[in-house]
Amino acid sequence: MELGAALPGVDALVARSARAAWDGKTKPRGSLGELEALAVRIAAIRGTADPGPLRAAVVLAAGDHGYAAEGVSAYPAAVTRQMLLNFVRGRAAINILARRAGAHLVVVDAGVAEPVDHPAIRQVRLGAGTANATVGPAMAREDAVRGLAAGAEFAEELVGEGFALLALGDMGIGNTTAASALCAALLPAEPEATCGRGTGIDDLTLARKVETVRRALAANSPDRGDPLGALAAVGGYELAFLAGVCLGAAPRSAVVLLDGFVTGSAALAAARISPGLQARMVASHRSPEPGHALVLAELGLRPLLDLGLRLGEGSGAALALPLVQSALALLSEMATFEEAGVSDARA
Amino acid sequence: MELGAALPGVDALVARSARAAWDGKTKPRGSLGELEALAVRIAAIRGTADPGPLRAAVVLAAGDHGYAAEGVSAYPAAVTRQMLLNFVRGRAAINILARRAGAHLVVVDAGVAEPVDHPAIRQVRLGAGTANATVGPAMAREDAVRGLAAGAEFAEELVGEGFALLALGDMGIGNTTAASALCAALLPAEPEATCGRGTGIDDLTLARKVETVRRALAANSPDRGDPLGALAAVGGYELAFLAGVCLGAAPRSAVVLLDGFVTGSAALAAARISPGLQARMVASHRSPEPGHALVLAELGLRPLLDLGLRLGEGSGAALALPLVQSALALLSEMATFEEAGVSDARA
Repeated sequence: MELGAALPGVDALVARSARAAWDGKTKPRGSLGELEALAVRIAAIRGTADPGPLRAAVVLAAGDHGYAAEGVSAYPAAVTRQMLLNFVRGRAAINILARRAGAHLVVVDAGVAEPVDHPAIRQVRLGAGTANATVGPAMAREDAVRGLAAGAEFAEELVGEGFALLALGDMGIGNTTAASALCAALLPAEPEATCGRGTGIDDLTLARKVETVRRALAANSPDRGDPLGALAAVGGYELAFLAGVCLGAAPRSAVVLLDGFVTGSAALAAARISPGLQARMVASHRSPEPGHALVLAELGLRPLLDLGLRLGEGSGAALALPLVQSALALLSEMATFEEAGVSDARA
Repeated sequence: MELGAALPGVDALVARSARAAWDGKTKPRGSLGELEALAVRIAAIRGTADPGPLRAAVVLAAGDHGYAAEGVSAYPAAVTRQMLLNFVRGRAAINILARRAGAHLVVVDAGVAEPVDHPAIRQVRLGAGTANATVGPAMAREDAVRGLAAGAEFAEELVGEGFALLALGDMGIGNTTAASALCAALLPAEPEATCGRGTGIDDLTLARKVETVRRALAANSPDRGDPLGALAAVGGYELAFLAGVCLGAAPRSAVVLLDGFVTGSAALAAARISPGLQARMVASHRSPEPGHALVLAELGLRPLLDLGLRLGEGSGAALALPLVQSALALLSEMATFEEAGVSDARA
């Protein structure tokens, strides 16, 4: 796999056709607001003016983080693995939301400290949790390469099974710290601007989180021009895997639906590795994490929802998925003025 | 039917139970953001801490408007009836969205100029289009009373059939002018603040629309303290009917899901007739109509979506419905920390 290979451009001609199709539908022009632009973007990604609703999968990647040892989360590190068990039992938020949205959920262990042996979990396991990045790299550069490759291969496999929309999800105690460090390195930005309250930490813990990110950056000196190196140095296993999913989805014309800050940071890394990749992405929501708005702005993506969601797991992506599918169904199924015998606007 | 009867309060004890239930679920507290508050509100309306997803109907009421003669729309008045035909053929936006959201769609002719004889259309027909309110009342006070009663009875019928969530939709060339006049009368506000571009009118038409509203207010002098009188004087048949649906839904613990500016204006009239009614309402989205933000603020409702939707038909309500149902499904189905053996946040 050639990770940095140039992408074919999204199809501007197809976008124009989709735009024209909207304008013939029985509704005032532009009256479906951002859903019209969304469907046009997806048409361009898919290379067809009428993509219709897409077969969707949620790729939920989990990993543990050396950052957790710094006391940056409100939850103990054991929760990552406990939540994997919750996912396979089908009663976590993402199980319910994926079911309701008609999306297939796949749970990936990208590098949890202690594995869960269950057939429903895809074992990628780049390692048993990352190292503490405040004293050296979170993982070796080769591990990040393996993560990208594994994610890209998995995307290829899902596309081969007929999935055309891959929604990203994450689980990992400490992973908003990894995302904050990665964004601080790649944007670049100050740790204060990228760190937020994650699972709901207090002021003292937030100060510790900012300091942790600052120390990780100082210990590793990640280079903005080397996104793969930054991913290895201060990122995380699930971040590398999710970035790989972005890289693998794009050349196969699959739409990548982002969740919140963690998946957004992985997407940012992917877009730095393969410039232009963001044209294949849809932002589901904006989380209250301050770094998320920075990432979305950098990627030029406008989120569909702004509901204060900060759960992760792909929950925001699954919640936005019906909007995406509805936009595509409307573009596909609505009658035209001509078909319906409805008078168009007065010229 | 006693239209102005006092409502039983929404159930604060139930709200507390629902709040506590959220806090036991396997997720950081508050991490589902506004969806948590939404489910708590609905629990209070339904009077049960675990209402679960609700059987939903979209009530799409259509009417014609004397205002149309003033040239306030980009579309000819004939479009109201043409769209009724589009609805019964199943290929308008709301047909597709209601199907996708799992909602039953009922189309009501509340007073279209020329009726469509079709079994799928509920014939209420308060009149054959309202009179031009710039020269006198849009309808007689008795017509507005009949509209409220018909809407309330219809809500009662739907609740009797098991529907617990009534989403409101509207269709009627000229009805954003009626809504603008009604809001200007009830808030009160200047016509400039309540008039917007509706179906997409140009500056000249917008100026004419503002002037039309101003003339309607001058011709009728609606009294802010007489919402029924204002509804009759400057409103519309579908507005009266939809206000009636709000009034009929509330005492039966049904949730009213608003669409955009027109349904919001009807809801405002209903809430003025029956103070406190807004506690039973959910705002699906905020439209670009400037009056809509004023109405939502006055009702104290925070919209779920902000996507520049301005189609009407109940389209925004149907698009937001999966968010509502998902919030209720999460509250109902998610595992608790205890059930899942997941460690809670460190105290």
